[in-house]
Amino acid sequence: MGQGEYSYTFPHRGLIAASALNRVDLELIFDSARAHLARNRTEDKKHPSLKGLTVINLFFEASTRTLASFEIAAKRLGADVVNFSAGNASLKKGETLADTANTLAAMQPDLLVVRHPSPGAAEFFQRTTGISTINAGDGANEHPTQALLDLFTLGEHLGDVGGKRIAIIGDILHSRVARSNVALLSLMNADIRLCGPASLLPADADRWGASVFHSVEAAIEGCDAVMVLRLQRERMSSGLIPSAREYAAIYGLDHARLSLANQDCIVMHPGPMNRGIEINSALADDTDMSVILDQVEAGVAVRMAVLELLAGRGMQEMVP
Amino acid sequence: MGQGEYSYTFPHRGLIAASALNRVDLELIFDSARAHLARNRTEDKKHPSLKGLTVINLFFEASTRTLASFEIAAKRLGADVVNFSAGNASLKKGETLADTANTLAAMQPDLLVVRHPSPGAAEFFQRTTGISTINAGDGANEHPTQALLDLFTLGEHLGDVGGKRIAIIGDILHSRVARSNVALLSLMNADIRLCGPASLLPADADRWGASVFHSVEAAIEGCDAVMVLRLQRERMSSGLIPSAREYAAIYGLDHARLSLANQDCIVMHPGPMNRGIEINSALADDTDMSVILDQVEAGVAVRMAVLELLAGRGMQEMVP
Amino acid sequence: MGQGEYSYTFPHRGLIAASALNRVDLELIFDSARAHLARNRTEDKKHPSLKGLTVINLFFEASTRTLASFEIAAKRLGADVVNFSAGNASLKKGETLADTANTLAAMQPDLLVVRHPSPGAAEFFQRTTGISTINAGDGANEHPTQALLDLFTLGEHLGDVGGKRIAIIGDILHSRVARSNVALLSLMNADIRLCGPASLLPADADRWGASVFHSVEAAIEGCDAVMVLRLQRERMSSGLIPSAREYAAIYGLDHARLSLANQDCIVMHPGPMNRGIEINSALADDTDMSVILDQVEAGVAVRMAVLELLAGRGMQEMVP
Repeated sequence: MGQGEYSYTFPHRGLIAASALNRVDLELIFDSARAHLARNRTEDKKHPSLKGLTVINLFFEASTRTLASFEIAAKRLGADVVNFSAGNASLKKGETLADTANTLAAMQPDLLVVRHPSPGAAEFFQRTTGISTINAGDGANEHPTQALLDLFTLGEHLGDVGGKRIAIIGDILHSRVARSNVALLSLMNADIRLCGPASLLPADADRWGASVFHSVEAAIEGCDAVMVLRLQRERMSSGLIPSAREYAAIYGLDHARLSLANQDCIVMHPGPMNRGIEINSALADDTDMSVILDQVEAGVAVRMAVLELLAGRGMQEMVP
Repeated sequence: MGQGEYSYTFPHRGLIAASALNRVDLELIFDSARAHLARNRTEDKKHPSLKGLTVINLFFEASTRTLASFEIAAKRLGADVVNFSAGNASLKKGETLADTANTLAAMQPDLLVVRHPSPGAAEFFQRTTGISTINAGDGANEHPTQALLDLFTLGEHLGDVGGKRIAIIGDILHSRVARSNVALLSLMNADIRLCGPASLLPADADRWGASVFHSVEAAIEGCDAVMVLRLQRERMSSGLIPSAREYAAIYGLDHARLSLANQDCIVMHPGPMNRGIEINSALADDTDMSVILDQVEAGVAVRMAVLELLAGRGMQEMVP
Repeated sequence: MGQGEYSYTFPHRGLIAASALNRVDLELIFDSARAHLARNRTEDKKHPSLKGLTVINLFFEASTRTLASFEIAAKRLGADVVNFSAGNASLKKGETLADTANTLAAMQPDLLVVRHPSPGAAEFFQRTTGISTINAGDGANEHPTQALLDLFTLGEHLGDVGGKRIAIIGDILHSRVARSNVALLSLMNADIRLCGPASLLPADADRWGASVFHSVEAAIEGCDAVMVLRLQRERMSSGLIPSAREYAAIYGLDHARLSLANQDCIVMHPGPMNRGIEINSALADDTDMSVILDQVEAGVAVRMAVLELLAGRGMQEMVP
């Protein structure tokens, strides 16, 4: 595809689900993200393609890294950025979600970034307001920009992920990170393996397009990448999950377990890490294998790309 | 009046009270707001007339919509914007309000936007610091930009409000929204009607320049606009007010009650709404009558106009 | 020293401790601060020397004035500014300080401003991330920009502080403000006097390069400046300190006590003040002696200078 066509070829009104993206979308996003990534390493990070536009970050769940990543992305693109964090005043006053959405929409933002504990919330905002919305996590449903930054990072390290063996370890069932990642990895024809406590694995792995493993050693064998999920004890009903110590013993990733994977296998984690639980500290810090900080860096670049494409300003990136 | 004279003819140091404004002021503000409103609907919302200036939003009461509206307004005008919200650290450390005011003033902001639970707080900030201050709500006293956006919205829908019949329904006595609206509506010679529970109506309606009604049906009859106030139960002493259910039955606005008004009567609410209490959901969503989202949109535009005029930068708007 | 050399002569990677600065550093910082101070009083405060850069303010302790001062400073320099305040989400999720530091660093900020209750935290951030870090207060250790703004203010009022007699009154032992101020005042060969409750005075005053006084009257005698420290009861173990009333009687500064000082003696306080405890209200408001608001104003200018110099952008200030 020729350059200069970005703003005409990205057909999406918003980014609600990774599962809605196709290979051309990914190519557009990653080409642009690669340019942002390089610029972000320089002393002139500003690329004001969103100048004149307003971005509202609306986070109904506490967040530091994802909010920071979106805020930095939008500011580097020159947008006016307004943040709302958990504990919103109006919500406490009993306003409905639709009224909150319509009120903010009436202030004419050009893009909304929404994180909410309920599945479907981001789509609800987009449908209600008609404004391009990025889903920054809706309950256990989707977190598409996380999957994009993960796939981007995989690509930088492994090249084409088609046929590559990638294990996702942890609470698969309740993880929006896993769900969005499986959508993109399936699209790219990766060999996806899911592993975690029996009660936290999807019964319908066929529909997910992945193989299910109960033994973490079996899951890791021959892998090119292992994605470790955060043990989100704050989200779990008591009784479902082993203790932190048991979990570390059975599912925790360390050098010994990783030695079952391919020699160049990389280790990923969406953060924040519980060191000593789902991942061993020595492994997390082993920069021969861990690409966890590459993921964070890619996050800003990928979000810049997505914001630009949704605003129809992506083409400017391509003009020489 | 000729164009290009804005910065010379707006005589105010700040905007503390709607009651201090005259008809020429309103014309200046609304002419400018109309231009901002149109620009805010485009893809280039930036109008950097406040470039080089610093605006501090200082909200001692929780707020989402008003803070967002002022923040978006100031950012679209290119100002550097710094927000402080309820729960300020220094206040917790026992600093006096005068010390807070003088400390912030020493950082050389050009404009202050102050919301505070005490009547007179915004004026206190302006008098203490000498810095142009906008009152974003001071207890039960005034909320002038709300009245401006309401009058602007009335004008867009009804034309000149002189002689128009406008009812304000709810807790009139404790409402800064009502107080500021009555000031502007009186100035414009509207036929103002106030209606609410007996204990929440002003005894001195003469001085307010309004007629008082105890029956909501009588108040609505022949109206061109009905302003519904939020039932602010969080502000009321127990025992003063009927239950939500009783309140809805006696004062809640719905299609049936509104049928007593003129055919083209519009319905307004300052938000956030208690649906099913002071306003019926079907009516709130009936865009033939409800202009509630128009009010929110006008809010950003009117605040842009006020910020610009107070900064003496309004004229730039008028240069062709 | 010639102009135009700033960015080549400021050798620091960050500003962790006032004690690391030399006289040439101070001259560079203050020359630049003087220009910023003058510009901040005009209607065009913008000086976009940090354009294209990202500044993260990371405040693990509550703060209004210091955060506001850094935020305004960085915004006036045109940087993209992202704030994190106490109660960080990720920290609550159990992330280590190193992981927080590395995660933020991966988003490619150019400068970090860190306040933290633990001594050494700012240095830890700089060492861990390799990113230029400004210590905005690390426990009882250092608060270098406070000492810089204090010394700048002293210079504006007293000229060269060499040989000038300056008393610091209060809880010296636990005060990062005192520690940083003593470092700079020693460097400038001031005659430093420390005075406070016996249990809150350093036993090793020799090493501090200061004389210790137990009587506030004796300490003030012949002084050119008196720095009053905030009584930080929130930081003290019970039993260590007299009541507020006793403290005011024994150490509180008022006109009577100040009459023992030189005729032109100035009074300083880092804020927020406990009026009626460590300083009498009449004295705090006596603008013949109190330079407390000058300190606040200088704070923004000094921080602009430091940010610029650390970013290697200070030279632009000097280009005619």
